Amino acid sequence: MNEFDLIERYFKPLTQGRAEARGLLSDTAALVVPAGQELIVTSDTLNAGTHFFADMHPGDIARKALRANLSDLAAAGARPYAYQLCIAFPQKPDEAWLEFFSDALLSDQEKFGIFCSGGDTTSIQGPLSISITAMGLAPTGKSLSRVGAQPGDQIVLTGAVGDAVVGLRVLQKKLMTEDDGHFIRAYANPSPRVSVIDVLRDAHAAVDISDGLIGDLGHVCKASDCAARIELSKMHFSGPAEALAGIGGITVQELLTGGDDYEIALAVAPEKTEEFMQHLVQEGLSPQIIGEFTAGSPGVFVFDKNGYEMPIQNAGWTHF
Amino acid sequence: MNEFDLIERYFKPLTQGRAEARGLLSDTAALVVPAGQELIVTSDTLNAGTHFFADMHPGDIARKALRANLSDLAAAGARPYAYQLCIAFPQKPDEAWLEFFSDALLSDQEKFGIFCSGGDTTSIQGPLSISITAMGLAPTGKSLSRVGAQPGDQIVLTGAVGDAVVGLRVLQKKLMTEDDGHFIRAYANPSPRVSVIDVLRDAHAAVDISDGLIGDLGHVCKASDCAARIELSKMHFSGPAEALAGIGGITVQELLTGGDDYEIALAVAPEKTEEFMQHLVQEGLSPQIIGEFTAGSPGVFVFDKNGYEMPIQNAGWTHF
Repeated sequence: MNEFDLIERYFKPLTQGRAEARGLLSDTAALVVPAGQELIVTSDTLNAGTHFFADMHPGDIARKALRANLSDLAAAGARPYAYQLCIAFPQKPDEAWLEFFSDALLSDQEKFGIFCSGGDTTSIQGPLSISITAMGLAPTGKSLSRVGAQPGDQIVLTGAVGDAVVGLRVLQKKLMTEDDGHFIRAYANPSPRVSVIDVLRDAHAAVDISDGLIGDLGHVCKASDCAARIELSKMHFSGPAEALAGIGGITVQELLTGGDDYEIALAVAPEKTEEFMQHLVQEGLSPQIIGEFTAGSPGVFVFDKNGYEMPIQNAGWTHF
Repeated sequence: MNEFDLIERYFKPLTQGRAEARGLLSDTAALVVPAGQELIVTSDTLNAGTHFFADMHPGDIARKALRANLSDLAAAGARPYAYQLCIAFPQKPDEAWLEFFSDALLSDQEKFGIFCSGGDTTSIQGPLSISITAMGLAPTGKSLSRVGAQPGDQIVLTGAVGDAVVGLRVLQKKLMTEDDGHFIRAYANPSPRVSVIDVLRDAHAAVDISDGLIGDLGHVCKASDCAARIELSKMHFSGPAEALAGIGGITVQELLTGGDDYEIALAVAPEKTEEFMQHLVQEGLSPQIIGEFTAGSPGVFVFDKNGYEMPIQNAGWTHF
């Protein structure tokens, strides 16, 4: 099985016969953007040893790579359309690995409504590296970005954060918990909030929590030129995370700064917040209001249950 | 200088202030595809040690990565629009390297009319890896692909191939020539044929010669379900390559199968070929007609100057 056989057998089915992908027979795809829509584009690279464990199940690797991108599309209020898959293999991959990897992609494609339009398959003298560029559609001018949060806007979070970083610690053998399976699933199989994009578009600004809540909210503050105030008295983590924090297994700061959750934080006008929350609940989510955006220099301030400001260090993941 | 400083200082200028890139403040770009146009998308990954030498000048690395993609857009008859840059660094890059790398990208952006709309900057426990997804625009239904070559179509090549593979051998210290500079330039700084896309769209099918003439023409044959016949009596290489082949420094087969040239091979209807060639000459190129597509099972057949068929082995580059 050479490179071309591999593409024919495992990656061509990912085009699902869509005309845009031209059967992967050409170097280019031809995508169609309907009038009145804009194309929302995002890219995420995941490298083995840095972003995931090389020995993770290939299905988990596939889902993580695609969903990290789907989460960015969701945070922009964009309906998934197509993605380009660039994958660099350290050696010729075995067929079982490819089977699991491509099956997981296909299953997620059907789940989230996206297809593979092309990409590049290469070899690398190093770790497995996956770069996906995902493209989605949103009504022109209606997509969300990190820009636009206004003082007084409520900070809405589409779920609970912190489980993924616990899952990471468990996989790193740094931590053992009563709910290892729950945490590992949160890390390995995040749920991009694609199902609620029509609701999300009513927000002023949004970001997905990939680098940690504090860090990612900080990006919104910088982009929107305002500050954010998180009140722990209003905020909850998942049951297992609350329990673990209760026995000192993890600190609140770690839950607030750990990445890989892929929930979405939004800036919502106060008068719209109640309806916004109701819509998210109707869609099956458990959203929470965790604080508000305020006037002031960009920065995220966290207040504990007694109203005292908490010092936050190492606010989020950086590569350098 | 952390990851965010690096992006702010070296990559944000690559957006050239375009609104679509949202100042790299968000995870997504918002691209605009005018009515009547389709978005042509292509991706190329280049890994140090596999696709280029890690110690190459950062400007050459930047140009090679971007131009490989621009060449695919040109072969599709698409006007460059925007690109996503995913770059994984083995360690924190030094500022001189980044300066040369980003300057070269910016200079090429201005030369070819494209801007950086976003991407991802990561670290990798391995070699420098660059994945670019480039997007271009073409009138709907008018873009070119590998599909569409018809028996009787002439095979037009936008220039001479083979110089790049000689440049590679020189850089690998496997070969020494009278014209090392000429060959190394061909390898390190290929010229994507962006300036002639309006002419190219009159062809039936096209492919850029990145994996070698025989291999890439073979892809067209497979996609178009026909055969190709190359006649060396009609074909020329560059002056320096002809001279080198004349003294036995390189074989014709190596020139025909070496990659990285980024000329474009096209299938042109016989009655249109003369005008097509004239237009390319007017644009400053030195095109040549090297043979024709024929009915039959997909395959590329090469005939020497005496009309005898040449055996061709290892038709093109494959990663596995």
